[in-house]
Formats: sequence, C-alpha cells, structure tokens
Amino acid sequence: MGVTTARRAITRMPKGADAARIPDELAVEAPLILAMDGAAIATLMRTPGHDLELAAGWLVVESGVRSAEDIARLRECRDDDTDRVHITLRPDVRRPRPRAFVTSSACGVCSADVLDLALLREAAPHRDGWCVPHAVLAALPETMRDQQRCFQRTGAAHAAALARADGTVLTVREDVGRHNAVDKIVGRALFDGLLPTTDLLLVVSGRVSFEIVQKAVAAGVAGIVAVSAPSSLAVDLAREYGLLLAGMVRSDKLNLYAGEALVG
Amino acid sequence: MGVTTARRAITRMPKGADAARIPDELAVEAPLILAMDGAAIATLMRTPGHDLELAAGWLVVESGVRSAEDIARLRECRDDDTDRVHITLRPDVRRPRPRAFVTSSACGVCSADVLDLALLREAAPHRDGWCVPHAVLAALPETMRDQQRCFQRTGAAHAAALARADGTVLTVREDVGRHNAVDKIVGRALFDGLLPTTDLLLVVSGRVSFEIVQKAVAAGVAGIVAVSAPSSLAVDLAREYGLLLAGMVRSDKLNLYAGEALVG
Repeated sequence: MGVTTARRAITRMPKGADAARIPDELAVEAPLILAMDGAAIATLMRTPGHDLELAAGWLVVESGVRSAEDIARLRECRDDDTDRVHITLRPDVRRPRPRAFVTSSACGVCSADVLDLALLREAAPHRDGWCVPHAVLAALPETMRDQQRCFQRTGAAHAAALARADGTVLTVREDVGRHNAVDKIVGRALFDGLLPTTDLLLVVSGRVSFEIVQKAVAAGVAGIVAVSAPSSLAVDLAREYGLLLAGMVRSDKLNLYAGEALVG
Repeated sequence: MGVTTARRAITRMPKGADAARIPDELAVEAPLILAMDGAAIATLMRTPGHDLELAAGWLVVESGVRSAEDIARLRECRDDDTDRVHITLRPDVRRPRPRAFVTSSACGVCSADVLDLALLREAAPHRDGWCVPHAVLAALPETMRDQQRCFQRTGAAHAAALARADGTVLTVREDVGRHNAVDKIVGRALFDGLLPTTDLLLVVSGRVSFEIVQKAVAAGVAGIVAVSAPSSLAVDLAREYGLLLAGMVRSDKLNLYAGEALVG
C-alpha cells in the first residue's frame, strides 16, 4: 500500500482574518513506470497504492489481457527513487498497442519530461516587486465563471483563463479536458505575442496536477489560481519554479500553496 | 468557432416524482488530429472551438515553439468527418518529442482506438432481465464516498468503485487521476476473476468522458453511475454498447443518459 497523502505547510487566508500557517494534506502524485521486456512502455502519473491493480487494469484496456492467467508475472520494484511494475504477458496475448505519435493534452508525463522541464523555463515568472492583492485572487474564479458559457449550459466543462494582477481577465477558454482549456489559453497568448506570460496569472476551474504546472512553467505565468486543490507534486514544482499557487479559492477563503510572499 | 454543446434526450428522475423525458445540453467531445509533415502526431479529445489555439498551446509545451513566428503555418481542415490541424513549423524550431511508448491512463484516443473498440466487447454487459432499482443508483455515490479516505483528507482525489445492482460496493479505489482509479478497479476485478464484469456497475466520482466508457466496455460492466455529467461522445458510446449511464447522481435526483429500460 503506497502513501496516498502527503503533508505540506501552507498558508490559509480567510477573508477579514489573519492568515495562518498550517499543515495541509495533499493527494500524492508520482510517476509509475510500466515496463515490459526490459523497456518502459508507459509512465502513469498516479497516486501510489494498488499499483499492480493499476498495471493490470491498464493492460485490460490497452492489450489483449482478459483474465489473470494472461499475465505471466507482475513485479513491483523501486529503482532510483522511481516506482516500476515489470510486466510479463503470456506469449499468445496481444501486446499493448504502440502509442507512438498518439497522445493527448491530458497525457501523463515520462521521467524525461520531468528532467526536460528546466529547458522550458526561459524567463522569470514575474518582475521584481510584482504582487497580487488577496481580494483579486479570491475573486478570479468567480470572474471566470461568469464567462463559462459551456459550463453554464452543461455543468460539465472545464475552463482556464489568463488574468492580470489587477483582476482583469484577458481570455477564457472551455473544454471537456482541463489540459485542453489551458492549452487554448497558452495558444491564444502565443498568437497575441504575450509569451512568456510574465506577471500574468493562469486561472483553472479544476484541480492542479503536475502537468498543469508544467504547462504554466512553459508559458511563463507568474502564478496559478485554482478552484480545487493541487497534488503534492504540483506544489513541489510550483515552489521549485517560484510560482504563486493558490487553490481551493472561494470568495471568502483560499489556500496558498506556494509564493506566499507574492500576495500583498 | 466549433459547436461546444450538443442536445440529447435524457430521462430526469427526481425522487418521489415521475420520470420525465427532457432535452439536455452536453459538452461536446470529439477528436482533433494534429498533423505535421503529412503524418498525425497527436489526437486530442477536445471540445471543438479555438482549435488553432489548442494546437498552438500544445506546441508551446511539446515543442520548441516560443513565439507565433516559430509556426510557419497552421491550417484547419475537415476530412472524413474528422477535424484536423496541419502544422508547419519553421525549420529551426525543435519538433515535438516523439511520444512513442509514453502514455498515461489519462490519455486521449486516436481514431484507431475508436475503430478498435468493437474488438474489446466480448460479452453482453448484463443478463436478460437484469435491472437496477432507482434507489440503488441514487445511493451509490454516497456509499462510495464513505470509503474515499484520500478524498476525505485532501478534497482532491477521484474515486471509482465496482458495485452490484443490489447496492453492494465490492471495491473502491482512489487516485489523483480519474482514469487511474478506474484502471485500479478493473485490475482488481481481473485479479478476482470477475472479468467480464457482467451485471456489475462502475461508479465514478467525476465526469464521464469517451475514454471512461471505453474502459467500461473493455471491462464488460453493465453500467456507469457518475457524480458528474457525461460528454456527448460518452453518451453516444454508452448507447451504442447497451450500457446504462446515470449521471449528476444525487440522493434526490439523477439523470439517465442511456439504458433507461434497465432501471426498475
């Protein structure tokens, strides 16, 4: 059984009361590499625990596995601080399709991506002295929601927005995939000559996973404002890259997971 | 601008009142193929609209694109009923990494997967006469929630469960990725000799996308019970494969998007 939650010290900011430094529990997000015949075939960003079930379930969808007997062996191991499941299928079982050139913006990442990230960062996320008023952070999700037309009609679409530190929302985009909504925002910023998006905030309607922070770093935003909570890895990455990360943002309270000094 | 919502006739079932057949708006989910140098490099399951922005934003994260000038040309087209964006990068711009053998259970699907789906279906999802009481459907998300320990501590983990039509929950699994939670459930069912999961229900804490239905079909469940809403494509697929699909499930009301005849 893996460790499914991790504790981080965060700053809770209730409206009209003092901010408090408190310990908070976050859902753990960490890579699991699936390996077959000595090679990595997939990397899943997952919450540790039940990794053999995860590997087996993945095989039911991706390969010809239909019963436990189709899998000759599943072995867990941990090398170089990375969790792996080594898979051996019976010889007559259809192998997972190669996923070459097929991906999605909801894709997980491989360890190479993690290492590559440093290359993406080409500008400081904000200028010296840049800061965001607490009231702006608290209001941004609601300002965005007023423009979420697909959500208003279906109750089932994610949104992302780009905003200034004074609360002005520049663009809102919606999609069934939360990663796609962020990609649309980044693409719009590219077309408008706004990359790197120094001093700007990325607002997202859902949770903040590692990959959302990765996209934020690639675009160069100063911070992320989220309606829901971040994963452990998302917080660690935001801190490493000096981003502001606000989550569980409501009009009357919010949590600061990273960049506390940037809120004034 | 693409069509972001689609209308489907669904059955709304309020507690203690008659079910009503009503039109409902769903977020559209449809594949967008990104092509470069004449070959598909990625397929994104997205909500249509702002497709050029989506392609450009995807390139910022996945390739060396840092300004609009790095992209020589972006061209939208629609062949064989499929939306495509053809990308031409400047010669000196780093190409997207090949994503061969790197995937995630949160991955989108390529059109090949859509076509392949028929191969996955090897058993009827339910026996003749199988049905689920309305009260069971309405209670399942809450029964699952009582066992979501990671969610209770973090507020940020998805869950999936396998349940019988009498409301018995067999297994609950949690993960930061909703696809991973489903894979863990399917893997557990495999280990327990329960595949195909005829007459069983898959309960999920989040939205129902095309890929969740794909996993449900691969496992062979009779139906899906979701806390949130499905996408248009998820509804279409559930209907095609004869699955029950209940969404927006609360203790006092729920929507039936497919398999109305299976609720008794």
